[in-house]
Amino acid sequence: MKEQPIITLLTDFGSVDGFVGVMKGVMLQICPNAHLIDISHDIPPFSISSASFLMEWSYEYYPPGTIHLCVVDPGVGTNRRILIVQANDHYFVAPDNGVLTPIIDTGKHLKIFSITNERYWRENVSNTFHGRDIFSPISAYLAKGIPPSVMGKEINDPVRLPMHPIEFDRDIIHCHVRYIDRFGNLVTDLDIDTYKKWSANNGCTQDQTIIQFQDTRVMGISQSYGMKKRGELLAVFDGYDRLEIAQNGGDASRHTGLGIDAPVKVCTPW
Amino acid sequence: MKEQPIITLLTDFGSVDGFVGVMKGVMLQICPNAHLIDISHDIPPFSISSASFLMEWSYEYYPPGTIHLCVVDPGVGTNRRILIVQANDHYFVAPDNGVLTPIIDTGKHLKIFSITNERYWRENVSNTFHGRDIFSPISAYLAKGIPPSVMGKEINDPVRLPMHPIEFDRDIIHCHVRYIDRFGNLVTDLDIDTYKKWSANNGCTQDQTIIQFQDTRVMGISQSYGMKKRGELLAVFDGYDRLEIAQNGGDASRHTGLGIDAPVKVCTPW
Amino acid sequence: MKEQPIITLLTDFGSVDGFVGVMKGVMLQICPNAHLIDISHDIPPFSISSASFLMEWSYEYYPPGTIHLCVVDPGVGTNRRILIVQANDHYFVAPDNGVLTPIIDTGKHLKIFSITNERYWRENVSNTFHGRDIFSPISAYLAKGIPPSVMGKEINDPVRLPMHPIEFDRDIIHCHVRYIDRFGNLVTDLDIDTYKKWSANNGCTQDQTIIQFQDTRVMGISQSYGMKKRGELLAVFDGYDRLEIAQNGGDASRHTGLGIDAPVKVCTPW
Repeated sequence: MKEQPIITLLTDFGSVDGFVGVMKGVMLQICPNAHLIDISHDIPPFSISSASFLMEWSYEYYPPGTIHLCVVDPGVGTNRRILIVQANDHYFVAPDNGVLTPIIDTGKHLKIFSITNERYWRENVSNTFHGRDIFSPISAYLAKGIPPSVMGKEINDPVRLPMHPIEFDRDIIHCHVRYIDRFGNLVTDLDIDTYKKWSANNGCTQDQTIIQFQDTRVMGISQSYGMKKRGELLAVFDGYDRLEIAQNGGDASRHTGLGIDAPVKVCTPW
Repeated sequence: MKEQPIITLLTDFGSVDGFVGVMKGVMLQICPNAHLIDISHDIPPFSISSASFLMEWSYEYYPPGTIHLCVVDPGVGTNRRILIVQANDHYFVAPDNGVLTPIIDTGKHLKIFSITNERYWRENVSNTFHGRDIFSPISAYLAKGIPPSVMGKEINDPVRLPMHPIEFDRDIIHCHVRYIDRFGNLVTDLDIDTYKKWSANNGCTQDQTIIQFQDTRVMGISQSYGMKKRGELLAVFDGYDRLEIAQNGGDASRHTGLGIDAPVKVCTPW
Repeated sequence: MKEQPIITLLTDFGSVDGFVGVMKGVMLQICPNAHLIDISHDIPPFSISSASFLMEWSYEYYPPGTIHLCVVDPGVGTNRRILIVQANDHYFVAPDNGVLTPIIDTGKHLKIFSITNERYWRENVSNTFHGRDIFSPISAYLAKGIPPSVMGKEINDPVRLPMHPIEFDRDIIHCHVRYIDRFGNLVTDLDIDTYKKWSANNGCTQDQTIIQFQDTRVMGISQSYGMKKRGELLAVFDGYDRLEIAQNGGDASRHTGLGIDAPVKVCTPW
């Protein structure tokens, strides 16, 4: 058993109704010294795509060996599979619904297991709460050092979310909205490093860059949220280190009507 | 002192204003190695009945010896008593306002203590925040191994909430709404095991079962939330393993006007 | 390294978007045995004054040696300094924006360090998320036992918030609203001990005391929230042990229009 194994939790269960507390009890029964850390329990209900973004972004701030548990599971009670994915020296536990697509697409030393050995589940598995009955115990057994190969069998056909990779078309970057935060800010998949390379190649500064979506153009990427007038749309690199469209003092998602997967173009002014 | 004693916390303090954080500080001063786990801090203010439901449901997922602290305490500052209840190898710390009724009514090896020994309280006890001044220190001393008998004296007249036990009247089950979750779903006290026995005895499948309340009838118990049209009421066994009345895409509590303790009938179609 | 060092967290990041979870990962990479405790993540965005109140109030419930991390940081990305303050045997980590004013003004054995040694920061420091890139690592290194003097240099000109000390004018106490809680209750800076001395000196009971603000007078300080009619304003000593103006069943802040720093008078009736 590791000294104090870390299990992170990412769900859409909210923090009101006790579901997360019960999952933690189940885990501590199996692995009393686990360090349980909440990433978020306020994923929009069933939003696999939001969970996928937060998982991809957050996991690498944790030490190797960390177990990342995600229960956003519209298919609970159906025969969708349950996965343990090993990648980049981390473990990921989630339903086989595409939420781990970014991990699976880019992970090194990738192994994917479909978990079938009921010996590592709770005795009576309900139809409605696999978070408690399956996901929590298998995460805790992982934390205790039981290898995934004992709990299931390796597979190579996991469900994948359709991803929209960033594309470059001459001097235009085509990216997409990946996540909408609690203020309605629109977080794209364009990270600052990719932008900086493009910006250097095109000799185009942040001030000169144009962000385009629908019929709207935002001129320049601001250094902070406060640099435009109240109510105006702006673009900024945010806490996720990604290009974000925000409305100063407002809700950009409501204002623009843009949702997840909406296309956004990044252009030079010439 | 136990290896890493667990204390769970259930309050109506919210997570905005720092009250729970202060309680945790008080506990860690006394018992530095305590494992502090939140069940919920968003119980509707003063809702003894909601707290009572979450406590009854959640505690048994924790290991024996766990200390379950509940501070939903409309009587703070009055002379209501403060209890430590020992039952089923768990400890429960709560005001004597009925919140522990289900534990007291069904607990094995039951002992109830009224906590009076001020040596185990904070020095200056306020009128308004016994969560910090009394409940937290006594929970932490319990975690350190101080027996309840040293902190108070045994009693046998705790305050009880009026409970509405499930009743069977020929082929009808009479149950009640026990909890309303964050989506307005109406959780009854009818658990799936009791239902399954009734269902077998009456040769009545989930599809055939009729749920009745006020002038409304819901035909059949669905396998999931999505199995009726948007806006329609449905019945389902939920994450609490209890019969729940929900509205697909809506708030069943607002839609029906049903509140906690409202009667619900489960019937056969013949 | 201390047995299990405690780090408390106070931010305006919310608990939805994963920012706090990422900070915890960064800290656990550096100091795996840290005990991470949330005070609040729902400070109103950029409200230095709310954070300052909760910090001042909450820290002393924690054991000596605790590290209190506050990230409410409207100046992120500018050249505002980053502080470690040592006071009263506690450590405080925060931006140099005045949030630690009450600690600095009253702290014993006070030392203030401006943190400049980038060796203790994350490698690539972003413009937007110093919580992750600077505040978390320096808190974790503190927890590991690295002294502040190694991470920065002592200074004596920290930014101070303008504070409004309580003033006595004959038999009147002049105090101010310091904090507004999640229900809109107006928490003043008048603590119960100061009031009790004044009350004894003036022979004025709680019932006789008059609370005055704008054109409004509240007669008497109630023992609890329920002692006036629904909708009526009342005064009470609250969970912070401070005089609070509340509206029974309502939102006193919205009802009165009073905000933080608004003046409140406490008077005798003669």
